[in-house]
Amino acid sequence: MSAAVETVDAAATAATVASRSVTTRAERAGWLEALALELEADRTELVRIAAAETGLSDTRLDGEVTRTASQLRFFAGVVREGGYLEATLDSPDPALIPPRPDLRRMLRPLGPVAVYTASNFPFAFSVLGNDTASALAAGCPVVVKAHPGHPELSRRTAEIAQSVLPAGMFTLVEGMEAGVALVQHPAITAAGFTGSERGGRALFDLASARPKPIPFYGELGSINPVVVTADAAAVRGPEIGAGLVASFTRDAGQYCTKPGLVFVPAGGAVEDAAREALRAAPSSRQLTPGMTAAFSTGVEAFGEVPDVEVVRGPATADGVSAPALVLTDARTFLAQADTFLAECFGPVSVLVRYRDTELDALVAALEPSLTATIHRAPGEDVSALAGALGCIAGRLLFDGWPTGVAIGWAQHHGGSWPATTASIHTSVGATAIRRWLTPIAYQDAPQEVLPPELRDGNPLGIPRRES
Amino acid sequence: MSAAVETVDAAATAATVASRSVTTRAERAGWLEALALELEADRTELVRIAAAETGLSDTRLDGEVTRTASQLRFFAGVVREGGYLEATLDSPDPALIPPRPDLRRMLRPLGPVAVYTASNFPFAFSVLGNDTASALAAGCPVVVKAHPGHPELSRRTAEIAQSVLPAGMFTLVEGMEAGVALVQHPAITAAGFTGSERGGRALFDLASARPKPIPFYGELGSINPVVVTADAAAVRGPEIGAGLVASFTRDAGQYCTKPGLVFVPAGGAVEDAAREALRAAPSSRQLTPGMTAAFSTGVEAFGEVPDVEVVRGPATADGVSAPALVLTDARTFLAQADTFLAECFGPVSVLVRYRDTELDALVAALEPSLTATIHRAPGEDVSALAGALGCIAGRLLFDGWPTGVAIGWAQHHGGSWPATTASIHTSVGATAIRRWLTPIAYQDAPQEVLPPELRDGNPLGIPRRES
Repeated sequence: MSAAVETVDAAATAATVASRSVTTRAERAGWLEALALELEADRTELVRIAAAETGLSDTRLDGEVTRTASQLRFFAGVVREGGYLEATLDSPDPALIPPRPDLRRMLRPLGPVAVYTASNFPFAFSVLGNDTASALAAGCPVVVKAHPGHPELSRRTAEIAQSVLPAGMFTLVEGMEAGVALVQHPAITAAGFTGSERGGRALFDLASARPKPIPFYGELGSINPVVVTADAAAVRGPEIGAGLVASFTRDAGQYCTKPGLVFVPAGGAVEDAAREALRAAPSSRQLTPGMTAAFSTGVEAFGEVPDVEVVRGPATADGVSAPALVLTDARTFLAQADTFLAECFGPVSVLVRYRDTELDALVAALEPSLTATIHRAPGEDVSALAGALGCIAGRLLFDGWPTGVAIGWAQHHGGSWPATTASIHTSVGATAIRRWLTPIAYQDAPQEVLPPELRDGNPLGIPRRES
Repeated sequence: MSAAVETVDAAATAATVASRSVTTRAERAGWLEALALELEADRTELVRIAAAETGLSDTRLDGEVTRTASQLRFFAGVVREGGYLEATLDSPDPALIPPRPDLRRMLRPLGPVAVYTASNFPFAFSVLGNDTASALAAGCPVVVKAHPGHPELSRRTAEIAQSVLPAGMFTLVEGMEAGVALVQHPAITAAGFTGSERGGRALFDLASARPKPIPFYGELGSINPVVVTADAAAVRGPEIGAGLVASFTRDAGQYCTKPGLVFVPAGGAVEDAAREALRAAPSSRQLTPGMTAAFSTGVEAFGEVPDVEVVRGPATADGVSAPALVLTDARTFLAQADTFLAECFGPVSVLVRYRDTELDALVAALEPSLTATIHRAPGEDVSALAGALGCIAGRLLFDGWPTGVAIGWAQHHGGSWPATTASIHTSVGATAIRRWLTPIAYQDAPQEVLPPELRDGNPLGIPRRES
C-alpha cells in the first residue's frame, strides 16, 4: 500500500468509526455554527493565504468567507428545523390490500462521504464548502480531497475543521493518487465533486465500477445560455449588453454559472453595448497557468471558425487573460454547435445574432445546463420560450445574470448531463443535504427503538406527514 | 439497425414527442384510475393468462391484480395531492450575502423512462406495476421491457395501457436485444429495474457507461435477515418457527423480501417448530425451469458445507421445488459468510443457531438488505440491536415477517448495494415517484411563466413550503 493509499485508508476507517456514534441534530447544528465563527475569526489570515494561492481579489475572497459562513449557518438551520428528515407516518389499516402495518419513515445518514473540492471557490466549494457543510449536517463524516490550486489554504481550513469536529468526522487528504483511492474505498458511501467534466467523469466512472457502486454527485461544466428577446433588446439593449460583459468577465469568468452563450436579435443595441463595455472590461489572472493556457486555446478555436469575429478587451497587467467576445450568426452556430457548446473556462462569451425565425432552432440545439436566462420586455409573454428552456435548465432566471447563486430553501444548482452526473440532485440549497441521506422505514416498531423524530406525539416538534 | 433496435428507437422517439406535451396532474391521476378500472374489468382473463405462464396460484394472482390496481390508485392520490412536487418558495432578501432573489422550486418530469419488469410479480412489478405507475404519475412516458417469463400477459396488459394512455406515453418492447438497446438510447432519461443482481448490474453498467449517464434504479436481491432474541424464543418460539416456514415457503419463496437467513438462540423452540412446520409446508412450481435448477444447485451448495444440515419438506407434485431449511451454527456461518449471504431464490432459509456472545459478530457480518426483522419478547428493549440492523436495512420490522410490502406514504423498499443500485431511492411507496423527477428553480419569474403550483396565492392549494 502506498503512503497516499494508507492515508486514505486511515481517514476512511476513522470516518467509519465516527459514523457509528449517533449525533443529535442540535449537536451537528452547533458544529456548523462553531465552524462559521472560526472561519470568520481567522478571516484576515485565510484571505491572505487564499489571495496568494488563487490570484482572486481580497474583496472577492472576503465576500466568499462571508458566503461560506452563511452556508454553514444555513445548514445549521436546515438540520435544526428537521423537515429535511421527511418524517412520514402511516397508521395501521388492516382493511387495505395488502394490509398496512404501522409504518414510520425518515432519512438517516448514509455513512462516510468523500468530497472533491473546486479550484474556483477556495472557500465556498472547498474544504468547508457546501458539500462538507451539507454532509456534516446530515450526520456523515467527511474525507475531503484538497484541490492542488490552494494547498496551504486547504490545510489551514482543515485545521479549523479538526479543532471543532469530533475525531474522525473530518480528514483532509491530498494528491491525485489519494483522490483515486478515496472514491474506491469500500467505507466511502457517496461522493461529491465540483470541477471539470473530464475530472468528474473519471471519478464517476470509478464510483460506478466499484464492486459496490456508490452515488457520485458531480457538478461539472455549464454553458448557461441567455436569450434576449427582440422586445427586450429594443427596450433596454444597452443595459443588457453592459450587464452581459460585467457578468462574464467577473473574476475572470471563472464561474460554473458564467453566461457562455447569448442569443441576441440581429442588429440590435445589445451587441453595440457589449462591444463598448468590453473596451473597459476588467481583466484578471486566472486560477492556474493551465487554465490560462486552456482559455487561450479555447478562444483561438472559436476564432478559427469561418464567419466568427473575436473581439478582445484590454489586458491590464502581465499574465492576465484579456476578456473575449465571440460574435457569430445563427447559421454558423448551428453548423458547428459542438464547438460553441464546449465550455471555455474564463472571461469569454459567444454572442449569436438571430432573426425571429431562427430562435427555435437555436434553443433546440442547446444541451442541459445549470442555468438558462431570459431577458424580456416588461409584460412580454415568454411562456413558450420558458417552457423550452425549462427542460434543459436547473435554474431558469429572468432579467438577471446567472452568476451569484443565492443560498435558500428553493435553490437548485444542478441539471442533466453535462451539467452534473446526477440529474436529480443539487449542490447548493437546502436539498443538497439529501445526497447524504437514505431512507429507513420502521414497521410496527416499539417506541423506544424509534428515533425521537418518529415517536408518538412528535416530541421534538419537527414537520411530519401523518396519515 | 436490427429490428429490435428499430423498435426501441421508434418507442423512444414516440416517448420523446409525448414528453413534450405538458399534462396536468388531474389528467394523469385520471389515467391511473382508468388503468386500475380496466385491470379489474379484465381480471378473470388476465389471471388465467398469468396462471398459465407463471405457475402462480389463481388466489395469489387475483390478489396481485387487486394490489396493482391499489398501487395505480395510490399514485393517483399522490399526484392529486401535489406534495410530491416539493413546491418551495423563497421571498427576495437583498440583505443576505449573497442577496436572495425570488426563488421558486418544484420537481418536473425527467423525460422518457425505461422500465424492466420482474418475473415474480407479473402484475405488481410488471407492465403496469409500481415503476410504470409512478413514472406515469410523474408525467414521464414509459417504454416497458417485457419479462420473457410472461410474454402473453405482458402483451395483453400493454393493450390495456395503450387503450387508456395518449400516444407515445406507453410502449412495450420485448427481447434481450431490445432491453440492451433501451437503456442506451439517448432519449431515455432514467431506468427502473426489478430482478437479479447479475441482470441489474449489467444494465446499471450500461446506463453508467453512456456518453450521457442516466440514473438506473435497480431493485436487486436481498437476504432479509431475521434475528430472534432469546427472550422471544422463550416466550413464543413455536409461533416464530411456524411463521418463519410460512413466510419463506409462500409462493415458492419467490419474493425479494423472503426471510433467507434467521439467527435463533441455540437449543430453542424456534428450530423445533420450524422443523415441524416444514413437514407440512406447501411446495409449488417455480416461475421458470431455470429458477428451479438454480434453486436446486443453491440448496446443494449449502449442503456441501461441513457442519450444515439441510432438511427438506415434501414435494407435493411433479416439477415442484421442495422447501428446504438449512441449519448451522454461528461459527460455521462466520467461517463461510459469503456462501450463506448469497441469495438463493426459492423456498429456502438458513437458520443459524447462536449463543448470546455470538450475536454481535453475526449481525456485523451482514450485508445491506431490503429488510431486517427483529422478534423480541413483549417489552424487551432491543434498541442496540435495532441500531445495528437499522444501518443495513431499508425497512426494519418487528415481530412480523418481511414478505408483503404495504403501499403507503411511509413505505421504503430499498437499501444499499446489493439490495439496490441506488441506495437513496425506493420502488414502493409514495416517494417512488421521485426517481422520475428533477428539480427546477425559477428566479424572478413572471407569474404567467410559472407552473400554477408555484404562483402567488397557491391557486391549486397544494402543500408548499414558503419562507
